[in-house]
Amino acid sequence: MLNSRVTTSLLQHPTSAAIRRAFISSSSSPSSSFLSSPFVRSGPLRFPTPTATTPSLLRHCSSDSHSSSLSSNPKSKLPNANPSSDKSTWRAMAEKDISRYLRQTHDRVFEHNRAWAAEKKKADPDFFANLSAGQTPEYLWIGCSDSRIPAEQITGLEPGDAFVHRNIANLVCNTDLNVMAVINYAVRHLKVKHIVVCGHYGCGGVKAAMSAKDLGILNPWLRNIRDVYRLHEKELDAIPNEEERYNRLVELNVIEQCKNVVKTAGVQQSYAENSFPIVHGWVFGFNDGLLRDLQIDFEGMLKDIQKIYNLTES
Amino acid sequence: MLNSRVTTSLLQHPTSAAIRRAFISSSSSPSSSFLSSPFVRSGPLRFPTPTATTPSLLRHCSSDSHSSSLSSNPKSKLPNANPSSDKSTWRAMAEKDISRYLRQTHDRVFEHNRAWAAEKKKADPDFFANLSAGQTPEYLWIGCSDSRIPAEQITGLEPGDAFVHRNIANLVCNTDLNVMAVINYAVRHLKVKHIVVCGHYGCGGVKAAMSAKDLGILNPWLRNIRDVYRLHEKELDAIPNEEERYNRLVELNVIEQCKNVVKTAGVQQSYAENSFPIVHGWVFGFNDGLLRDLQIDFEGMLKDIQKIYNLTES
Amino acid sequence: MLNSRVTTSLLQHPTSAAIRRAFISSSSSPSSSFLSSPFVRSGPLRFPTPTATTPSLLRHCSSDSHSSSLSSNPKSKLPNANPSSDKSTWRAMAEKDISRYLRQTHDRVFEHNRAWAAEKKKADPDFFANLSAGQTPEYLWIGCSDSRIPAEQITGLEPGDAFVHRNIANLVCNTDLNVMAVINYAVRHLKVKHIVVCGHYGCGGVKAAMSAKDLGILNPWLRNIRDVYRLHEKELDAIPNEEERYNRLVELNVIEQCKNVVKTAGVQQSYAENSFPIVHGWVFGFNDGLLRDLQIDFEGMLKDIQKIYNLTES
Amino acid sequence: MLNSRVTTSLLQHPTSAAIRRAFISSSSSPSSSFLSSPFVRSGPLRFPTPTATTPSLLRHCSSDSHSSSLSSNPKSKLPNANPSSDKSTWRAMAEKDISRYLRQTHDRVFEHNRAWAAEKKKADPDFFANLSAGQTPEYLWIGCSDSRIPAEQITGLEPGDAFVHRNIANLVCNTDLNVMAVINYAVRHLKVKHIVVCGHYGCGGVKAAMSAKDLGILNPWLRNIRDVYRLHEKELDAIPNEEERYNRLVELNVIEQCKNVVKTAGVQQSYAENSFPIVHGWVFGFNDGLLRDLQIDFEGMLKDIQKIYNLTES
Repeated sequence: MLNSRVTTSLLQHPTSAAIRRAFISSSSSPSSSFLSSPFVRSGPLRFPTPTATTPSLLRHCSSDSHSSSLSSNPKSKLPNANPSSDKSTWRAMAEKDISRYLRQTHDRVFEHNRAWAAEKKKADPDFFANLSAGQTPEYLWIGCSDSRIPAEQITGLEPGDAFVHRNIANLVCNTDLNVMAVINYAVRHLKVKHIVVCGHYGCGGVKAAMSAKDLGILNPWLRNIRDVYRLHEKELDAIPNEEERYNRLVELNVIEQCKNVVKTAGVQQSYAENSFPIVHGWVFGFNDGLLRDLQIDFEGMLKDIQKIYNLTES
Repeated sequence: MLNSRVTTSLLQHPTSAAIRRAFISSSSSPSSSFLSSPFVRSGPLRFPTPTATTPSLLRHCSSDSHSSSLSSNPKSKLPNANPSSDKSTWRAMAEKDISRYLRQTHDRVFEHNRAWAAEKKKADPDFFANLSAGQTPEYLWIGCSDSRIPAEQITGLEPGDAFVHRNIANLVCNTDLNVMAVINYAVRHLKVKHIVVCGHYGCGGVKAAMSAKDLGILNPWLRNIRDVYRLHEKELDAIPNEEERYNRLVELNVIEQCKNVVKTAGVQQSYAENSFPIVHGWVFGFNDGLLRDLQIDFEGMLKDIQKIYNLTES
Repeated sequence: MLNSRVTTSLLQHPTSAAIRRAFISSSSSPSSSFLSSPFVRSGPLRFPTPTATTPSLLRHCSSDSHSSSLSSNPKSKLPNANPSSDKSTWRAMAEKDISRYLRQTHDRVFEHNRAWAAEKKKADPDFFANLSAGQTPEYLWIGCSDSRIPAEQITGLEPGDAFVHRNIANLVCNTDLNVMAVINYAVRHLKVKHIVVCGHYGCGGVKAAMSAKDLGILNPWLRNIRDVYRLHEKELDAIPNEEERYNRLVELNVIEQCKNVVKTAGVQQSYAENSFPIVHGWVFGFNDGLLRDLQIDFEGMLKDIQKIYNLTES
Repeated sequence: MLNSRVTTSLLQHPTSAAIRRAFISSSSSPSSSFLSSPFVRSGPLRFPTPTATTPSLLRHCSSDSHSSSLSSNPKSKLPNANPSSDKSTWRAMAEKDISRYLRQTHDRVFEHNRAWAAEKKKADPDFFANLSAGQTPEYLWIGCSDSRIPAEQITGLEPGDAFVHRNIANLVCNTDLNVMAVINYAVRHLKVKHIVVCGHYGCGGVKAAMSAKDLGILNPWLRNIRDVYRLHEKELDAIPNEEERYNRLVELNVIEQCKNVVKTAGVQQSYAENSFPIVHGWVFGFNDGLLRDLQIDFEGMLKDIQKIYNLTES
């Protein structure tokens, strides 16, 4: 169980304030223009202060027995350092504190894990025995790696319900063995009933893909999104408002990735035989926490795709 | 909000029992030997019955206002069908019910999502405004796609805390652009402080990799695990008990994937400059729900790796 | 130089004829429909006979000193065996001969290599010293793996002139690290002046991609060609003659792969700085051995691509 | 047919000499240390001069009818420009000449192609009809992209004899769909008898992999070679001479890539059924133009690999 006194003592440590000052001054001039994209929070730094009220590593399911100590846990984030200006000084004073900070955030996860396991067992003594027995998930979730979209939390899906793949910008690439192995396994061996491709508005990956930047090893990955743009260039170019254009690109990206899912032999053959899985395209909005169903016409999409990509050998 | 009467009426529908019988009889002789691996639950089929008591799509965070209707939601899983023996009959009677079932499970997710969003907003009116502002996750989580390990739930990490990549058997392959893009973005742009590779005992992917099966497109992916075996052949072959040998392979797999993380230029350069990120190897156990820290000596591993894979240009 | 007596004695060996008969009879009913695609020669098997006249492993550059022994080398091909019907008999009599045949074809390559090296040295005593000094190729050749298009022979390019990548259907995939590494190295480090994407009419890979077959691990690779079809569906569907439609798809595939080359940061940045490389799309025809230049408007393509894929940071 | 006067007139063009001076002066201080690796020729720049005697785009098979005009073709290479110091001047005077040079080198390839086709047809009127009929190659060649190793020339293999894949450092990666598709097609559909992995001493890819450089998108690709080093660290570290250590790494790299070939289901299953293909590891030496057979014990390697990677389902 997280003890608020541990956190408090960390925050009261004198050099902690020094780190904070160093971070705040250095981060005021971010060198990377990418940092100003919505992928990275651009607001005030959430560095630990005794008065912070947003709980950070709060257990997701609070029960009365321990919520009091957790809710008083102040937000103790180590900000994105950019200490290039005054490096040696910063390092000299900071290394010890960074090390301590890293150890503490690490330890807190294990505290939370123990609390979660205890609560689960209390609520259902057979919970872990059932979990050990195997998995029969009904969903394959293909979502963005973005930290703000914990698939299970926003959907209420429990352990055992959703086989999950998450990557940058929820892409399904033909030649990406990683996601192809995931889809193959989920459809042929786990026989999932639903495949969800879930994007989100304000996706930094999508925005990064539209900027004229050389992002090194990210280029080929993000190029998939530019390919989506190219396929829908006319529609997108006709949208005058930039944010609306991006949001539409987010939606079109989800739809195109759904098509990529439909192109696989596994999905086509399973659907012909079993009437499942169904492929869904959803978009999550940060502003209200709601999922939107893009109402993909799966049957129509399948028929359309099979004109060119039929792999059912029929 | 999910209404228990909807589910009940589905279950009382006459053909529903017929589907169930068809499933049970057909599934008694599973054709795929893979299905008997622990990746797939081998116990009795959890088909919807009015007496089922295990909640399936139960919201993970129950608040008083709606928990009553949700907790009475019976487990309504569509079993893994294998209706090859009596296919036309099965299809004729089942398609309509499958379709209905798929729609209902789909709708339920949206109900849960609305409840989650409402609860979050109630607890913190600024929650979604803060979320929209951007992300500054401190963790990169590289875990297995297995449905039983919802990264955020078992760690207590909140939306915004962990950038997440999940694939089959939590592999980090040199030539996999998917995971390489994730690591690059997390380290260079999000400046995460911790990178966790989290495996789990009883990993079906690891077991599948050790069986003499041709699994098609899964072969090349799973071959990464066989490469881990080869690197540690002596140690593994010396373990007489099969389950213990697999469990040790799960651990060694995590350690080797940590090494693969350390091989990247991004991690090496960031650590030289910032003293972070730290790479951790953890293993999750289904039997107790607890995370185990493999206590990787990150500094030692880095030094060892850089003898051959130094990309810091120093 | 290959000695005809060696081949003759192989062919006169009693069991050799037996293998031949086994092959001929079994191959008369090819089991795989893929074999009937133009990717595989569908004509009479070219099994070794004393009267065969097509030289197989003939050295490409004959000089007087050794051509006499080589030019009389009859074509001695081991046919594609399909001995499923009479397997045990076939194996019993054949294994020894297969082994011998494999060793002989293997040895012949080394004979040819020695003759080639001797000839090169004779024509230019400094040839290998120059070769050892390094490479400054002016061409990057991206062509099909098809055995009938030896890049250097059909273009007259000498050792040192062309950096070469060959894969199935000369594809340039965004997320394929293999070809991306090749392009990056060729442009940034070797500073090639020309990048040629060379396809060929009658490409079995392209044909395979258009048939409703589940080809396992080939599916995702060939799906790139279906993506080309999708981009040009209207034009292609309007071509009534099937062979003409395929040939046009071959050309469109080359053009789209050229675009994929242009999408890379390396090519865009090098061209902005150096006015090279130029990207070319060519197609080879088996019927006459001639290369056709598709006359790609490289400048126009670059400008068009950069509307969406600009990576020059300008 | 190439006319030597064309080349001469290009070279006598006044600004041509200016370009040459700019190149020579700028290239005297190469900015990239990678350029000094043996991957790139480090000798004097081979810029076109009327006295140059090394033929560049010489047809490989000279017959009396046209060799005279070709052999007098002076070497006209555009050197690797590094005109950063005096860029605007250089560009102003050079663009026109670069453009002309690029067009001429381009045209020459087509001349050579026409000559090659004519010669082939003359020697065998049915040559292209036979070629059109299909391919039944007996070899799969997996070699390096290095421009100095034209697979067919050094082996004497004719059009139709070898299915060819070439990439940087002749790597066979588990998760590389490009090479996996090639091997699958060659073994299952073309039923090749031999698979050759051919490396070469002085491989710049191998050297680059051993230097502490961040080479961007090349990192993950080259990391495969570092993985080979790691597997054989003791043996390699015990070799005191650097060049000998690199040469041994080249050989070990070939052997490990052969193992990767053997790990595939296609090769294992075909060999169990047909006694082929056989996997070979060869190394090419620039200093003498000879191939060396590493004498891999294929049967032993297969047996060893199948202890862990058996995919024959037996």
